[in-house]
Amino acid sequence: MGMVGGGPGAFIGNVHRMAAALDGQIELVCGAFSSDPEKSREAGKSLYLDENRVYGSFEEMILKEKSLPEAVRMDFVSIVTPNHLHFAPAKLAMENGFDVVCDKPICFSLDEAQDLVKIVNETGRLFCLTHNYTGYPMVRQAKAMVKAGELGKIRKIIVEYPQGWLSTFLEGSGQKQAGWRTDPEKSGKAGCIGDIGTHAENLAEFISGLEIEELAADLTTFVDGRKLDDDGSVLLRFKGGAKGVLMASQISIGDENNLRIRIYGEKAGLEWSQLEPNTLIVKHGNKPNELYRAGSNHAYLYPESISATRIPAGHPEGYLEAFANLYKEFALASQLRNEGKPFDVSFPTAKDGLRGMKFIDAVVSSSSQNASWVRM
Amino acid sequence: MGMVGGGPGAFIGNVHRMAAALDGQIELVCGAFSSDPEKSREAGKSLYLDENRVYGSFEEMILKEKSLPEAVRMDFVSIVTPNHLHFAPAKLAMENGFDVVCDKPICFSLDEAQDLVKIVNETGRLFCLTHNYTGYPMVRQAKAMVKAGELGKIRKIIVEYPQGWLSTFLEGSGQKQAGWRTDPEKSGKAGCIGDIGTHAENLAEFISGLEIEELAADLTTFVDGRKLDDDGSVLLRFKGGAKGVLMASQISIGDENNLRIRIYGEKAGLEWSQLEPNTLIVKHGNKPNELYRAGSNHAYLYPESISATRIPAGHPEGYLEAFANLYKEFALASQLRNEGKPFDVSFPTAKDGLRGMKFIDAVVSSSSQNASWVRM
Amino acid sequence: MGMVGGGPGAFIGNVHRMAAALDGQIELVCGAFSSDPEKSREAGKSLYLDENRVYGSFEEMILKEKSLPEAVRMDFVSIVTPNHLHFAPAKLAMENGFDVVCDKPICFSLDEAQDLVKIVNETGRLFCLTHNYTGYPMVRQAKAMVKAGELGKIRKIIVEYPQGWLSTFLEGSGQKQAGWRTDPEKSGKAGCIGDIGTHAENLAEFISGLEIEELAADLTTFVDGRKLDDDGSVLLRFKGGAKGVLMASQISIGDENNLRIRIYGEKAGLEWSQLEPNTLIVKHGNKPNELYRAGSNHAYLYPESISATRIPAGHPEGYLEAFANLYKEFALASQLRNEGKPFDVSFPTAKDGLRGMKFIDAVVSSSSQNASWVRM
Amino acid sequence: MGMVGGGPGAFIGNVHRMAAALDGQIELVCGAFSSDPEKSREAGKSLYLDENRVYGSFEEMILKEKSLPEAVRMDFVSIVTPNHLHFAPAKLAMENGFDVVCDKPICFSLDEAQDLVKIVNETGRLFCLTHNYTGYPMVRQAKAMVKAGELGKIRKIIVEYPQGWLSTFLEGSGQKQAGWRTDPEKSGKAGCIGDIGTHAENLAEFISGLEIEELAADLTTFVDGRKLDDDGSVLLRFKGGAKGVLMASQISIGDENNLRIRIYGEKAGLEWSQLEPNTLIVKHGNKPNELYRAGSNHAYLYPESISATRIPAGHPEGYLEAFANLYKEFALASQLRNEGKPFDVSFPTAKDGLRGMKFIDAVVSSSSQNASWVRM
Repeated sequence: MGMVGGGPGAFIGNVHRMAAALDGQIELVCGAFSSDPEKSREAGKSLYLDENRVYGSFEEMILKEKSLPEAVRMDFVSIVTPNHLHFAPAKLAMENGFDVVCDKPICFSLDEAQDLVKIVNETGRLFCLTHNYTGYPMVRQAKAMVKAGELGKIRKIIVEYPQGWLSTFLEGSGQKQAGWRTDPEKSGKAGCIGDIGTHAENLAEFISGLEIEELAADLTTFVDGRKLDDDGSVLLRFKGGAKGVLMASQISIGDENNLRIRIYGEKAGLEWSQLEPNTLIVKHGNKPNELYRAGSNHAYLYPESISATRIPAGHPEGYLEAFANLYKEFALASQLRNEGKPFDVSFPTAKDGLRGMKFIDAVVSSSSQNASWVRM
Repeated sequence: MGMVGGGPGAFIGNVHRMAAALDGQIELVCGAFSSDPEKSREAGKSLYLDENRVYGSFEEMILKEKSLPEAVRMDFVSIVTPNHLHFAPAKLAMENGFDVVCDKPICFSLDEAQDLVKIVNETGRLFCLTHNYTGYPMVRQAKAMVKAGELGKIRKIIVEYPQGWLSTFLEGSGQKQAGWRTDPEKSGKAGCIGDIGTHAENLAEFISGLEIEELAADLTTFVDGRKLDDDGSVLLRFKGGAKGVLMASQISIGDENNLRIRIYGEKAGLEWSQLEPNTLIVKHGNKPNELYRAGSNHAYLYPESISATRIPAGHPEGYLEAFANLYKEFALASQLRNEGKPFDVSFPTAKDGLRGMKFIDAVVSSSSQNASWVRM
Repeated sequence: MGMVGGGPGAFIGNVHRMAAALDGQIELVCGAFSSDPEKSREAGKSLYLDENRVYGSFEEMILKEKSLPEAVRMDFVSIVTPNHLHFAPAKLAMENGFDVVCDKPICFSLDEAQDLVKIVNETGRLFCLTHNYTGYPMVRQAKAMVKAGELGKIRKIIVEYPQGWLSTFLEGSGQKQAGWRTDPEKSGKAGCIGDIGTHAENLAEFISGLEIEELAADLTTFVDGRKLDDDGSVLLRFKGGAKGVLMASQISIGDENNLRIRIYGEKAGLEWSQLEPNTLIVKHGNKPNELYRAGSNHAYLYPESISATRIPAGHPEGYLEAFANLYKEFALASQLRNEGKPFDVSFPTAKDGLRGMKFIDAVVSSSSQNASWVRM
Repeated sequence: MGMVGGGPGAFIGNVHRMAAALDGQIELVCGAFSSDPEKSREAGKSLYLDENRVYGSFEEMILKEKSLPEAVRMDFVSIVTPNHLHFAPAKLAMENGFDVVCDKPICFSLDEAQDLVKIVNETGRLFCLTHNYTGYPMVRQAKAMVKAGELGKIRKIIVEYPQGWLSTFLEGSGQKQAGWRTDPEKSGKAGCIGDIGTHAENLAEFISGLEIEELAADLTTFVDGRKLDDDGSVLLRFKGGAKGVLMASQISIGDENNLRIRIYGEKAGLEWSQLEPNTLIVKHGNKPNELYRAGSNHAYLYPESISATRIPAGHPEGYLEAFANLYKEFALASQLRNEGKPFDVSFPTAKDGLRGMKFIDAVVSSSSQNASWVRM
């Protein structure tokens, strides 16, 4: 693969590289790691790349790689830049025949997202949006249980993503991660709700298979001087009658990434927490609740869950393994597609990205109208 | 004390009796346990009461007890009937000089609640509303920490009370508890939001010391045939700028009484869960989160918490002990008042009951206007 | 009931009184609360007792009460003194026709225990030893599950009781609880292993229904100046082939009363922790582990568990409720016996007390022989 | 690196490959994956290896690789065969100038282990024994806290490793993992105590910095037909006076890899559980216990812990990441050594392997003498 972004000091670029490397199926062969060619070179060197394949810009990378023999050139492009720099390389890559892995949210604005979906459809390229939490084995188990009807009709979904790291004016300190995430020029029209609210929205729709129909949102910026929201609470109504609540916050002091989802159906309920990702609590009305555990050896799990684990139960798999599942599935789909064989798309795609941008738009719009209901 | 309600098959009557008995300070001396005099007698007998002091109605009880010598007659009245039967005995008791302990919500309607507060003020009687969760030692600790400024300015409050016991049409089976709680003639205009939503509302205001200013609510009745809401999600805005979310549900299948509250301030946060009531998680931004534990021997706890425990840490105290704290504090206040001494009112009162009725009104009103904001 | 011991500053006396009072079936009518008559009077006054029934010694209490009319005199004696003062009042009470509730361990020495069992047998009196942890609903559930064969043949039992409160030389500070518990004149030949090790031993035998056959123990006194052991680790072999480990410690700094037991059989396993007593984890080989929860409404529980709860699931019951179960069951058995009716003995008795003293003897003997195996 | 073992169906071989790949610093370049050359070839192909560097035996691999130019040949050998096949390739590799990573336990017998330590010393090669649990960030934190004196003098260590997967006669079903682990020809003289007991022993010594001086062990084989122990309980005495208990079991039905360690010192205590590896509970005597959490952004952690994490707190790292830490540290040490620079040995070495073999020997010896004390 070839990488766009992910130079020195980047958090998510390294995550993508580790995730891609884990299963020994994907090799990083080139990159345009920074808009500063010197920094890009430096990154490439530390990654043991051929210096001829460390590029000064994504345009250069895509066009030069395209000209290389098929056996040599990168198979796909991985985009790990801030939000405002997703669209251009994704477009160029697909238009030049490359599949794309892209960090979330899909891009800067709803317009861009709609364009991207169009380009995906026109070029026939594969597009994987790294809503990485969908890669956890117990999230897959939850999705499969809902799909199989084990919960009955879904009634209520509560999804929350509290973080505490932006409880203070961290962006004022020059911290890079805080900087771009709170900057409307780079993040888009939403802060917290775009950065992590979209994860929560995606997870709720991914597991439940239901679409949010309308929502009422109350966004707040608690920290003085901050330019975007750092907290949001959203009432949800799903197609088909389920109700829900979504909470995302970056001022929940003392919380890390406490992403948690609870789904209640007529027959059973589910609860999953990202901080202990290998357990899924299955709730019942007339018998004891159960602790489902991730593990390749647990015959009671659905194949969709087992195939997302690498090792037997009791060896905790975490964030990187979940992330790696998306890369593994994407690479497999890409290979099968290239071989003309049928393939599964078990990973989030540009359509999910478009949902995310619609979510951001609807939330911001609702909040600006004092939490009126807005269709998504 | 004398009891109104709490005859055979009642759940909460027995809870009140155990709570009152626990500390050996309060004796049940009389009662009007049922509107059916035979059932009342039966209850009295099983409670070893003098048969002359088992009454056929609360009117009879209050008036006859009043005529007894002071050393003999009941000290106060405990009202444990369904909601629609709170007002009349409370009024009569106070007008005849008796202090009152009353189960929640305070009464059937906002009008009644306003009248009751007036009567309390006019008669000078003590009125304890058994929002029993306020009696837990770690709830007291939480309140004291907020009050002392340990959290800094409060930003966000999330309070939730999911239950699963009404996931099916239980009231159709003749189950008594389900019957009156889902009956608008007995419960009032709200179901779930009145029965347990008021607990959540009360707990949030009790700990934070903040008042809800306005709210936007989405109520649902998920179970076919049910006459009142069985689920509600509410956006909250507190006076002073804090935001919040309140969730109450009786269709959260597999959940028991998972009352949980999280409060985030500028400096620290708190998390408490009723199912493990002896632990309070204290959250920090730049040092490890801490596990505060209830216990009379923990010098790091505030006196308000220590005085609400009976035994050293490691001996779990639960629901009944918390409930008993309200009785103990009420009895002490009553005694001190009678002796003309200064006394503390650390228990919820009629004012809290009025807040609860305003909450119910505002929620129902908001929900009927498609979750518009309603002032409380 | 009449109480021996439990005067000012006593921890366990107040626990017994609250436990006895909780269900409204038992009334404290007299007591000899202290060897100091003045302190005894003071205690009696604070408990609202008739001053004529506050006695200066247990001998006086037992003999005077015996002379009162049956309808008036105490029904039974509750003994809550330090270990060395159990035997004499228990003996005198039973020889004068009174049933006895006695705190654990049953007495000061194995000889005394053997005598007491003889006296119980000769007098036909009921004797309840308050190994209170046996009163928890989920301990009852665990025992019933083992008995019903749900675990299959038991293989392994791990029981542990770590505390941290004696991590320092607390007895040097004059703290009363620490004082007598570390004093061989009052506690007997063992410290930690007598005080809490016997609880662990009792719990293991109570739930499993198995008897310890032999053991190898390593006792330690970690704190300088302490006269008795403050830590012990014991290998266990049960009759029938099960193996086990018992750990008791009072220098486990930061632990409260972390009594925990795990039992593994051929078909299933169990785990219960006193700090979260309302949950029982049931472990399986080929399906998810389950969370059994205490509650009068959980139809999946055995009657032995349900009858030990007062309220539906979700209202945590704790230490005092478990303690109260023993009193309730004892009082019921006593009443039925008096009425000539059949009765159950679901509470620990003098035989269990004798087992405890044998356990102490065997542990101390084994440890003094460098952890050689000693039959119990 | 070149791999010995790890062919089709092997569990641990794949784990080593993922761990080595994760950080992008180590490339698998050759292997002798099976004693069956056909299977070795097949494995090599699926791993995208040059077919000329897929060897039929470890001897062939080591000798041929040695003859390749330095820039091309493997840097080190990774040995992932069953226990009885560790010694020969490790010896040959080191004698031919290659550093070695080796799975645990270090070899088949104490004699072999002593020879290996000699060879390490004579050849000056680096030898990393993959006691992978030492790679967890919070294990590193625990070790650093002990070393810094935060716990004071250590008094008590409890380490346990219960598993349930061998509760039945799984080896009779042809399951490969169960087969060799219960076969004395392949595992050596111990079953459970060698396979996982050594992990527990290593973890206790690694964190505490203390050496076990003597032990008393009771081993059992619970499952009919099994040739080696499947359960063991061991009393420990450490040099310097600390006491301990070690439990390892493979018949703890329903448990996964519930490796857990608790260490109590005079000033503070620690508790860590492998199933939730990102949390370390720090216990105190006079203030609340604390939840230390892994994360590159937690300034309160020691550098030894932070350097063992890849991502900020809240992104769970697990088993593979911990395993990868050993590879990363080993590779770095190897590189620095090659460059003539100073380097740290933060990973377990052959000396730890020798300790493990001594532990196995002592446990088996003690158990065969009815749990007599045996010096280790």
